[in-house]
Amino acid sequence: MRILVTGGDGFIGRALVHALRVGHDVIATDRGDGDIADPAHVDRLFAAPIDRVFHLAAVVSGAAEADFDAGRRVNLDATIGLLDRCRAQALRGGPVVRFVHASSIAVFGTPLPARIDDATAPAPTLSYGTHKRVAELLIDDATRRGDLDGRALRLSGVVVRPALPNGALSAFNSDVIREPLAGRDYECPVGADATVWLTSRRAAVANLLHLAEADGAAIGAERAVTAPALAISIGEIVAALGRVDAAAPARIRFAPQPDIEAQFGRWPRDRSFARAESLGLVGVASIDALIRDHLETTS
Amino acid sequence: MRILVTGGDGFIGRALVHALRVGHDVIATDRGDGDIADPAHVDRLFAAPIDRVFHLAAVVSGAAEADFDAGRRVNLDATIGLLDRCRAQALRGGPVVRFVHASSIAVFGTPLPARIDDATAPAPTLSYGTHKRVAELLIDDATRRGDLDGRALRLSGVVVRPALPNGALSAFNSDVIREPLAGRDYECPVGADATVWLTSRRAAVANLLHLAEADGAAIGAERAVTAPALAISIGEIVAALGRVDAAAPARIRFAPQPDIEAQFGRWPRDRSFARAESLGLVGVASIDALIRDHLETTS
Repeated sequence: MRILVTGGDGFIGRALVHALRVGHDVIATDRGDGDIADPAHVDRLFAAPIDRVFHLAAVVSGAAEADFDAGRRVNLDATIGLLDRCRAQALRGGPVVRFVHASSIAVFGTPLPARIDDATAPAPTLSYGTHKRVAELLIDDATRRGDLDGRALRLSGVVVRPALPNGALSAFNSDVIREPLAGRDYECPVGADATVWLTSRRAAVANLLHLAEADGAAIGAERAVTAPALAISIGEIVAALGRVDAAAPARIRFAPQPDIEAQFGRWPRDRSFARAESLGLVGVASIDALIRDHLETTS
Repeated sequence: MRILVTGGDGFIGRALVHALRVGHDVIATDRGDGDIADPAHVDRLFAAPIDRVFHLAAVVSGAAEADFDAGRRVNLDATIGLLDRCRAQALRGGPVVRFVHASSIAVFGTPLPARIDDATAPAPTLSYGTHKRVAELLIDDATRRGDLDGRALRLSGVVVRPALPNGALSAFNSDVIREPLAGRDYECPVGADATVWLTSRRAAVANLLHLAEADGAAIGAERAVTAPALAISIGEIVAALGRVDAAAPARIRFAPQPDIEAQFGRWPRDRSFARAESLGLVGVASIDALIRDHLETTS
């Protein structure tokens, strides 16, 4: 199979490409080798028929808020461009692309609901989340029309990311784990009582691969699925850090920012991922497992 | 005020333009004088600053299903183009446009929910409804960012339209009233037990004007409002026709089409328009009032 991965040099992309290279012809693209919103670049990527697309390229939350045009270009225009390209390929009699979109729990906005399940209406309050939800809707319609066979996985905070900032306002999810364990002081932009939704890169990659294989009829007409996520308070994360390194908790100072807390620190514990689970998607077992995994990967 | 009305030569547009001409500088545009998806045409429309936009131009349900590219061009691309133009005007220090979008209950898809209220999650199943929902989301985000001050009114079947077909799959809503009363036989594509949501042109225009004046804070962050609609079965409509013209009911023959019934004939009686009503939006009192209004307008 010929598989295109956009955002292929990102935190999730690199691991996904690594997993896909076994047995497939993988075309990984990222900003280093071309602009995914540039039709000429997409022409080159689709020079030979593509069977599967994993669309991970994104300008993330904070960066898209700070530079609307940059976010719009990648998160909306480039996504529409890719869907158009898949449609054109199908109309020419080429393969109907299985299109897996990395969506986000940012499709849910502030104030975050007291419970989130498969019936919760997305109501984004960031440009990033808006464009992710728009992509989900366009993918549902394109799938219904037979232009492609789409799926969208709503990812929560995927941790532990490396220190290189990618502009995500949710970066604290990773920073609060990585920095104290590396012996560095860390100022956390949400309080200890803030609750976040997390998953691991391992689970995110496994779920993207699994959702790509899932039977379309089993997913249903609405192709966006919220991935299972661990709901945990920052205080609980700090306690877990202490179980690994007794000195780590003291390296954290709290300086809560209300806007960040409202969008990123008020995720409900009352949640259901019934659709995802029925499709075989997985979450992480515990914060301890997640931290252990991080230490094994980086040591 | 300088007011732009797109789709200004349509059934609703003509009545809206007529109402607005008193005291305002109204620029009405429709396909006869330019392509709303053509940036050069939009340049001309925005040559002088615009204060208010009523965006009614659309390729409606059936036409957009039959010709995806035509629907996409007007319903999605042109709408995004207009939002961009408003943003550009605001960024240049011009007026922040009050942008009123004619949305549609087609944002709700099949199977239609047993109850629809302000908490019902839109899940469109037509390209038309998908693009309407996408526009709503982009309008919410543009409003939040201050690019414009948007509002979207989800209209149900606006009747009684003239016989000229505009490609709406819901055209039967008007046809079933107009044709038998004009003495013509009519074949109805949904059964007598099908239930539809209706409003009048008078109510639609009043609501568009009223929503344009509403205080943004009273509407809230989600700017799409479902307009009050009469829920009524085709059988009840036929009975009302009989009260005006005893011979009219016999002119109707039923030939139900399952696809049409599923999207257009299964609207729930269990419904709430609480948000719309709190904003002062109105529906029609009864099917008899609606038919009387039609007869007075056409006689």
